[in-house]
Amino acid sequence: MNFSYSAKVKDLEKKLNRFMEEHVYPNEAVYEQQVNEGERRWSKVPPVMEELKEKAKAEGLWNLFLPESEYGAGLSNVEYAPLCEIMGRSMIGPEVFNCNAPDTGNMEVLVRYGTEEQKEKWLKPLLAGEIRSCFSMTEPDVASSDATNIEARIERDGDGYVINGRKWWSSGAGDPRCQIGIVMGKTDPGADKYEQQSMILVPLDTPGVTIERMLPVFGYDHAPHGHGEITFENVRVPAKNMILGEGKGFAIAQGRLGPGRIHHCMRLIGAAERALEELCKRVVDRHAFGKPLASQGVIREWIADSRIEIEQARLLTLKAAYMMDTVGNKVAKAEIAMIKVVAPSMALKVIDRAIQALGAAGVSEDFPLAAHWASARTLRLADGPDEVHRAQIGRLELKKYQGNGRNER
Amino acid sequence: MNFSYSAKVKDLEKKLNRFMEEHVYPNEAVYEQQVNEGERRWSKVPPVMEELKEKAKAEGLWNLFLPESEYGAGLSNVEYAPLCEIMGRSMIGPEVFNCNAPDTGNMEVLVRYGTEEQKEKWLKPLLAGEIRSCFSMTEPDVASSDATNIEARIERDGDGYVINGRKWWSSGAGDPRCQIGIVMGKTDPGADKYEQQSMILVPLDTPGVTIERMLPVFGYDHAPHGHGEITFENVRVPAKNMILGEGKGFAIAQGRLGPGRIHHCMRLIGAAERALEELCKRVVDRHAFGKPLASQGVIREWIADSRIEIEQARLLTLKAAYMMDTVGNKVAKAEIAMIKVVAPSMALKVIDRAIQALGAAGVSEDFPLAAHWASARTLRLADGPDEVHRAQIGRLELKKYQGNGRNER
Amino acid sequence: MNFSYSAKVKDLEKKLNRFMEEHVYPNEAVYEQQVNEGERRWSKVPPVMEELKEKAKAEGLWNLFLPESEYGAGLSNVEYAPLCEIMGRSMIGPEVFNCNAPDTGNMEVLVRYGTEEQKEKWLKPLLAGEIRSCFSMTEPDVASSDATNIEARIERDGDGYVINGRKWWSSGAGDPRCQIGIVMGKTDPGADKYEQQSMILVPLDTPGVTIERMLPVFGYDHAPHGHGEITFENVRVPAKNMILGEGKGFAIAQGRLGPGRIHHCMRLIGAAERALEELCKRVVDRHAFGKPLASQGVIREWIADSRIEIEQARLLTLKAAYMMDTVGNKVAKAEIAMIKVVAPSMALKVIDRAIQALGAAGVSEDFPLAAHWASARTLRLADGPDEVHRAQIGRLELKKYQGNGRNER
Amino acid sequence: MNFSYSAKVKDLEKKLNRFMEEHVYPNEAVYEQQVNEGERRWSKVPPVMEELKEKAKAEGLWNLFLPESEYGAGLSNVEYAPLCEIMGRSMIGPEVFNCNAPDTGNMEVLVRYGTEEQKEKWLKPLLAGEIRSCFSMTEPDVASSDATNIEARIERDGDGYVINGRKWWSSGAGDPRCQIGIVMGKTDPGADKYEQQSMILVPLDTPGVTIERMLPVFGYDHAPHGHGEITFENVRVPAKNMILGEGKGFAIAQGRLGPGRIHHCMRLIGAAERALEELCKRVVDRHAFGKPLASQGVIREWIADSRIEIEQARLLTLKAAYMMDTVGNKVAKAEIAMIKVVAPSMALKVIDRAIQALGAAGVSEDFPLAAHWASARTLRLADGPDEVHRAQIGRLELKKYQGNGRNER
Repeated sequence: MNFSYSAKVKDLEKKLNRFMEEHVYPNEAVYEQQVNEGERRWSKVPPVMEELKEKAKAEGLWNLFLPESEYGAGLSNVEYAPLCEIMGRSMIGPEVFNCNAPDTGNMEVLVRYGTEEQKEKWLKPLLAGEIRSCFSMTEPDVASSDATNIEARIERDGDGYVINGRKWWSSGAGDPRCQIGIVMGKTDPGADKYEQQSMILVPLDTPGVTIERMLPVFGYDHAPHGHGEITFENVRVPAKNMILGEGKGFAIAQGRLGPGRIHHCMRLIGAAERALEELCKRVVDRHAFGKPLASQGVIREWIADSRIEIEQARLLTLKAAYMMDTVGNKVAKAEIAMIKVVAPSMALKVIDRAIQALGAAGVSEDFPLAAHWASARTLRLADGPDEVHRAQIGRLELKKYQGNGRNER
Repeated sequence: MNFSYSAKVKDLEKKLNRFMEEHVYPNEAVYEQQVNEGERRWSKVPPVMEELKEKAKAEGLWNLFLPESEYGAGLSNVEYAPLCEIMGRSMIGPEVFNCNAPDTGNMEVLVRYGTEEQKEKWLKPLLAGEIRSCFSMTEPDVASSDATNIEARIERDGDGYVINGRKWWSSGAGDPRCQIGIVMGKTDPGADKYEQQSMILVPLDTPGVTIERMLPVFGYDHAPHGHGEITFENVRVPAKNMILGEGKGFAIAQGRLGPGRIHHCMRLIGAAERALEELCKRVVDRHAFGKPLASQGVIREWIADSRIEIEQARLLTLKAAYMMDTVGNKVAKAEIAMIKVVAPSMALKVIDRAIQALGAAGVSEDFPLAAHWASARTLRLADGPDEVHRAQIGRLELKKYQGNGRNER
Repeated sequence: MNFSYSAKVKDLEKKLNRFMEEHVYPNEAVYEQQVNEGERRWSKVPPVMEELKEKAKAEGLWNLFLPESEYGAGLSNVEYAPLCEIMGRSMIGPEVFNCNAPDTGNMEVLVRYGTEEQKEKWLKPLLAGEIRSCFSMTEPDVASSDATNIEARIERDGDGYVINGRKWWSSGAGDPRCQIGIVMGKTDPGADKYEQQSMILVPLDTPGVTIERMLPVFGYDHAPHGHGEITFENVRVPAKNMILGEGKGFAIAQGRLGPGRIHHCMRLIGAAERALEELCKRVVDRHAFGKPLASQGVIREWIADSRIEIEQARLLTLKAAYMMDTVGNKVAKAEIAMIKVVAPSMALKVIDRAIQALGAAGVSEDFPLAAHWASARTLRLADGPDEVHRAQIGRLELKKYQGNGRNER
Repeated sequence: MNFSYSAKVKDLEKKLNRFMEEHVYPNEAVYEQQVNEGERRWSKVPPVMEELKEKAKAEGLWNLFLPESEYGAGLSNVEYAPLCEIMGRSMIGPEVFNCNAPDTGNMEVLVRYGTEEQKEKWLKPLLAGEIRSCFSMTEPDVASSDATNIEARIERDGDGYVINGRKWWSSGAGDPRCQIGIVMGKTDPGADKYEQQSMILVPLDTPGVTIERMLPVFGYDHAPHGHGEITFENVRVPAKNMILGEGKGFAIAQGRLGPGRIHHCMRLIGAAERALEELCKRVVDRHAFGKPLASQGVIREWIADSRIEIEQARLLTLKAAYMMDTVGNKVAKAEIAMIKVVAPSMALKVIDRAIQALGAAGVSEDFPLAAHWASARTLRLADGPDEVHRAQIGRLELKKYQGNGRNER
């Protein structure tokens, strides 16, 4: 394993860090203020975001994700890791660099599986940051942790498909720029379990698409991005909107989720680093019971444990990235599952300690801690709950001892 | 120790449970809807709350707190525990029965330490549920976990006091009915450390009192109740608003916080019970990977651990209540500190498991879990952070081995 | 629930504590020394034990277990709890008072289910402390956590039974005074799953009984008591040695294990209290980095957490005892399962912290910590592993939500 | 960072694994049996050990530790890591390859700081595996976690030094081949705190050296190696036995402990891997409640968590090794402290889960689990307790925010 970085990556790292310090952190409060201004939180994008995007594009800090693709920056997963981590230090960071979920995942799907026409129509404006997208998979009425439970229907009808179903947690659906969704649903309920589902492109302005409400995460609505509950009622799209072909939903999901998961983990490491930084700054400054908080043994343990947990999560993420780069997402599935379990829990612990050290300020809007915590909490559920990943890791480990003898490690 | 209940308490328990089922749970969504209706979340109280209060008063489910007082229901802490727990099952529960913080704590202060005039003017309408109150102690600029750090000034000037300072987390300050605050500040910076502070009654409409903003808790604004950041700029109140006398701030805080802490713990146990209930209902209903979630060993462990932790926290709370009833709040300080550490952490764990079992629904507004979690999280900070309580418990334990020989247990 | 103690219990508590201080603690090292003297650790009982037993008998501190029995001291489980806890503070404590496992469990079986002849022959000398006994249930070849797996055979043959099988962890089998074992095995492999097994009395000097070896627990052999691996090869005993009747093995096991489990928990609480005591004494005395260890915040947290965990485990044990006393062992099964999960883990944590605070001394023979830890560790396995108890607790909780509506709590 | 292995290392890895399978694992029981044979456990070395050593030497699997030294195999710390891990899978492994503590540490001290004469006399036979050594630092009467507390005296007297003091946990002192000890003590109590101590070579047959007793770890005596409590009473050695010079004790300890700590961590990872292997093998084989243990969700979580924790600990150990190789032990001190905290706790958790899965067999001598657990437990204390390392990590992290601005990470 080799986690060393090229001069190119080190340079990007330096530029990104400077950009964050100069442009992103100072504008977090501006962004919040602009979201809260005026009457409707959902009808507009804070102008500061578009300004920041222009600046990032100008500095070449744009679309750094996308390994193995002509559209991206030509970075491997290992190379992207430290960069994505930096972006993840701010809630508004990823979008500034056009590296935010679920757009990245959707772009990856289009890059890998899209037709030229689909790419021209949807991938290009997404890569340019002109439009946004959402991903509609999870459903309120079933345990979606088992994706075979998904019930939405995508039925062939003449030269098109008709979609019926109810989806939720379609993140990004609230954004006024969100024009396209990738929808997963059943094309053939009679097929083999893993070939019943398909993914199809659905423009959000298609008749029959209704955003019923925007779901809060703890008390955050994440406007204007948001998490939509959407009903699809006899929604008709052309047949050419099908991605890869009928019955390929699971195959695409597997391809999409690997990179998606590891990007989340990289960002979580950044969020944890920032929390530890806030913690340290605070305890150096504040005094209680006659001495700085920083001299309390208990708080030093929090810092030590946080540093240890961050280091370990980062190394495991790098290992998973390295394996994705060298042996592919499929062989790396145990490692991807491992970081998916490790990173959110690690971030939650580190951020929680920072909240505790900051006291009431920690749960408020004055620091990015509570917001980062809430987002991290969703990642113990999104893209598969911890339990499902743990069960998979256990199963893969046991396989070495089952059947015809013990495998090599 | 005797935790058995009289017929009176059992009867109240039954009535309360029925009231919750009939009136409170079904109106939680109504309350939320009324808060969200119209233009300003802070300008009005959802009408359903006043209706529920009238109903509760009519059924004698009113002011059940307040042991040893002519104003209360004559219940001991042990007797109040199961009742307070039931109220705590709903975010809107305590207010319905006029048993919500910080009003309960403020009423206790007035009952114990108020003059007849103070009681007449403020306690009576509080007991009647006609007005609300806030408590202004914590400050944004210092580590308030060490209350000697508090910097607000209360200075004698002729026949009045002049107050200057900045407070935050004055919960309830957002409520349009909130008319009175108890403010802690320094009257004599030169006095002995624990006699510098005083508490004084400040009507919120006094010139110089400005609510700067309402602070969010993990995205929740808790409107219309809310958590205010308040500046006091040359705020002048009559000298008779002083409670108990100059320099008595710490003494009052100690008297106030014991009951306040245990009430929070009782409510947390209720919130945890409700979360476990939601968890169980869900896993019985939902299926994944070919069987009900309830048959998953991992989920059964969550349930078992939750049941165990709730039972233990409840028993420890009852022990603390029993000691408060029999040997007094001062002797019971180790036990009060213990439950203050145990109950919030227990509730956070139990609720978090329920969130995990419910999946994305768990972090949303569709279940009371995320909101209860966020409130429980503040209680690892409010009324003293865990660390301060742990340090005190450790110190009390060590005392048995220090000085002149080992104490009896 | 009423956990108050009568004058009788308080008096026994005081006497027991004094006896421990005067006679037991000072003789722990003497006992160890006598075990190690001479050639064989297994051939003799340290004389100091018989001396201590005589003293305890003389003071009326004898056979305090056994609720609801003419043979015992007439104490309820709640009343026995604080006494058993005190005995558990020393590895040699329980035997001194004739209250040690597995003899207590075996005596309970004989009291409840034995014939007059069985009582005369085995119960009387056990109650007198003249002989010892063992209990042979667990087998090396199967997962005995599921007792239906037990494979030993007990076959009727004329006027006797013939026993064949291999048992291990027959605790007490090493003691030269050990004369009788209760053996569980299958009488009817064709019967209903829970009626295949029986329990039978087997004198250890019966031909065909071979103690193959004494099993160590983390390096401890626990001589002369010990844990035997025993083979039974065509072992013939008279038919009258059958307890309660063929097929009653499970029924007896259920009756035996309830009290056995709670006694273990009581003793574990005592062991934890002693560990916390050793921890506190040490950190008050020792200095590092310029101050007493007792002033380190981290160590104070260990003390606080230990005190909290002990209190909670004790209260839950008392609740279980109270339920056993009032509604019976069967209805109290959830509570018994809960303490069986809680008490060993609690003791392990508390003792481990004490070990850590004492440094290398903690893992050695100079303090009772390592030995108590090893014994506590076996109790996460003995009488059912944690997982089995947790699964049962989860199942019982879920039952409230399954089938025809929710049960009352 | 580059954790890739050369062909040389991969070859050694393969050879070591084969050697372990063929020679070490099958002889673990033989070794135990030979230790137990005859009368005294301490008077002889099991013959199988010397046979295995000869075999290992013949295969070139000898002295693989020692980076940057003509005496070693020329392996960097990163290269040694996977090899040391393999050796650590067996309690008897490290000695077979002459890579066991404390001899490795003592050899490193001699290589780095020894005179030619000291090397000739003690290093050579140690490298040849002809003699063994011990390290006498910790003392029973003080908190040795703070090494400045050490009280033994080393006083110049003519052409020699006279040593007085009491040491314990001198591991290896029981071995009949143990001829030399490195003793730490005060030469100048008036010097600067970190220059009071010196290290000196003391042949164990010097008059005045008395091994008072061998200390058990939990119930293990670790014969014939063992852990000695040794008194030094007017022990006189020639002045040329001083290592590096008076007052250099701390400097040597720092140099010695870095590699010593990381070697322990590598071995612990091996022990954890073996435990996970035993766990998996067992749960695949055994059945309870109608299905293999391996199909229980709870057990799969144990396996998943174990795999995750092992991976993370290994990666952090490799990072620390990489830093030791590239920037030196001093700059790597935070990373060394981190693995010293992580690896023992990780191993304890993994081994404990294996014990739980194996049931009573797990705590016995039939599997290496209980013995490995006990050894791992001492490593939360040896070479500095967790708390001291955590405090250091916290301090190093805080330094980035203290003084003149934030350091680069």
